[in-house]
Amino acid sequence: MDQDKILLVHGSGGKQTHELIEKLFKKHFSNDLLNRGDDSAVIPLDLISKDHVGSLAFTTDTFTVTPIFFPGGNIGDLAINGTINDLVSSGAEPLYLSVGFVIEEGFLISDLDKIVKSMSRLCELSGVKIVTGDTKVVNSGKCDGIFINTSGIGYIDKDINISGRNAKSGDVVIISGSIADHGVSILTEREGLEFESNFKSDSYPLNRIVREVINRYGKDVKVMRDPTRGGLATTLNEIAKQSNKGIVIHEESIPIKDDVSAVCEILGLDPLFIANEGKMIFICSKSVSNDIVKLLRTFPESTYASAIGSISDENPGRLILKTASGGERFVDMLYGEALPRIC
Amino acid sequence: MDQDKILLVHGSGGKQTHELIEKLFKKHFSNDLLNRGDDSAVIPLDLISKDHVGSLAFTTDTFTVTPIFFPGGNIGDLAINGTINDLVSSGAEPLYLSVGFVIEEGFLISDLDKIVKSMSRLCELSGVKIVTGDTKVVNSGKCDGIFINTSGIGYIDKDINISGRNAKSGDVVIISGSIADHGVSILTEREGLEFESNFKSDSYPLNRIVREVINRYGKDVKVMRDPTRGGLATTLNEIAKQSNKGIVIHEESIPIKDDVSAVCEILGLDPLFIANEGKMIFICSKSVSNDIVKLLRTFPESTYASAIGSISDENPGRLILKTASGGERFVDMLYGEALPRIC
Repeated sequence: MDQDKILLVHGSGGKQTHELIEKLFKKHFSNDLLNRGDDSAVIPLDLISKDHVGSLAFTTDTFTVTPIFFPGGNIGDLAINGTINDLVSSGAEPLYLSVGFVIEEGFLISDLDKIVKSMSRLCELSGVKIVTGDTKVVNSGKCDGIFINTSGIGYIDKDINISGRNAKSGDVVIISGSIADHGVSILTEREGLEFESNFKSDSYPLNRIVREVINRYGKDVKVMRDPTRGGLATTLNEIAKQSNKGIVIHEESIPIKDDVSAVCEILGLDPLFIANEGKMIFICSKSVSNDIVKLLRTFPESTYASAIGSISDENPGRLILKTASGGERFVDMLYGEALPRIC
Repeated sequence: MDQDKILLVHGSGGKQTHELIEKLFKKHFSNDLLNRGDDSAVIPLDLISKDHVGSLAFTTDTFTVTPIFFPGGNIGDLAINGTINDLVSSGAEPLYLSVGFVIEEGFLISDLDKIVKSMSRLCELSGVKIVTGDTKVVNSGKCDGIFINTSGIGYIDKDINISGRNAKSGDVVIISGSIADHGVSILTEREGLEFESNFKSDSYPLNRIVREVINRYGKDVKVMRDPTRGGLATTLNEIAKQSNKGIVIHEESIPIKDDVSAVCEILGLDPLFIANEGKMIFICSKSVSNDIVKLLRTFPESTYASAIGSISDENPGRLILKTASGGERFVDMLYGEALPRIC
């Protein structure tokens, strides 16, 4: 690009917008469906499902994280991984994404390039394609650098039935790895807190591990959900309410890195409420739970997978934490806001 | 809602976010697919296409218009109509939308309610459903009231083939009504310009008129596109480039309201570059062009439909304007930015 900063004209829809699309977005995102250049991507149903049965998953998420670049990723990584993970949590194979940028006038084109490049890399890693997009530019001071919306569609095989409503008494709750990594990484980076540890976001696309679990144990998997905003406790509360079941989890089974746990204690934060961007909750039949944990542990993105609790008919709609010291207490959804703009 | 303003906690993903979803979004947008409450909407392919052939249209648009409320509509109207019109311009029947809100802390909940209500009204009018959504709240001063992303999916019948690439020499260019209404309405409202006329945005969902045209003349319709940002001239330039054809339009055939034309002259703006939000360009075989214009004129949203030009093998990639005085000149895409944040 000639200029080094985003200008209002890049959002005009005219010549400079087309230039930005050609020289930056198409350079990184190029594929047949996107390159067609019409206002809508046109996706033959054959590309979605050969046998034309099953369902479409459709989801959306806008990312407003601050800072835009943080240890372990940037806003673009979150935008791809977040939407992929929302799709796979419905049992879908993620296929196509849209991307909508809102960019502040004056934003560095080199930073936009970095963001777009890592989005492109993650699309390749996950086998998804960005097929349609939109760019708006707002005056300086009217947004915070860049916001990114990604919407996505995926395909759900006809035999798969995953929903927050499906948890049954006796089912086992599994988390795919250590909690609170993303939130602690953002917080320490944002506030300039210096610790000996280097905290790193766990932002990661979970389609591979979900595909493996679904292919082998699909019929016994009832619920999947990624515990992002509001953390593990809020997400389990949502599922307890949707299924009208009680969920009991055991504090000492919940994987958390020592340094993450320590920083939470120092800052007075409960890691159960802190966002994750590369973790999945699985709720499955007891008969397959050990096998799923074993399978998950063979992948680097879920080495620390653990069974952390179970579903009960008692206390419907509530989450109960059994503490390390032998006590137990109800844990509600996140109330208030400890860490705004985490994603 | 208890509070009258949006707070950061409404974007926490916790209790207050769920409250906002239940008491505001679900109240207006309620439908079976949305109410399921999982991270992705799950849409059986049967609901999209009974015979499971054809294609999916997928599009996205973020709206950052200022002011948020303007004569003839608000940002919510644009968000629904804009995405519907992008879908229908690919020949699709619009079906399902996602909506992603970015809201500034302190935004009035009563204003959000107004916006959501008009989005809901337009969904009903157009027969589309909002099936998945997301809400983020950013600190005061970090966005401009509210930004809305809508992504949408629709179904394209197997016999339909609409694309900016399809214009052929001899085809006729039709515009469904008067140009520049939206841009002039936003501009005069934003700048507090007082004229005797009451300018009104043309924001409107065009699925009805497109459906009628496609049902009767589908095979003879080559291109459809709504001339939004950048106006009629930019959109025709895009099509000329995609099709590698010349497009010739006749100034005196282009419908424009007298007062809109007058205000453009006073302000030194070229109405060919001014945004429309309720108009469609059709490029079709000459044999059906008169019939399509006649058909369009039977609908209130396209009473002033007119044939304005034709496709030529000469000057590929260029737009030529034949002026009222008998001259002719090349008209390029919008260069620069006369009216930022028009949508």
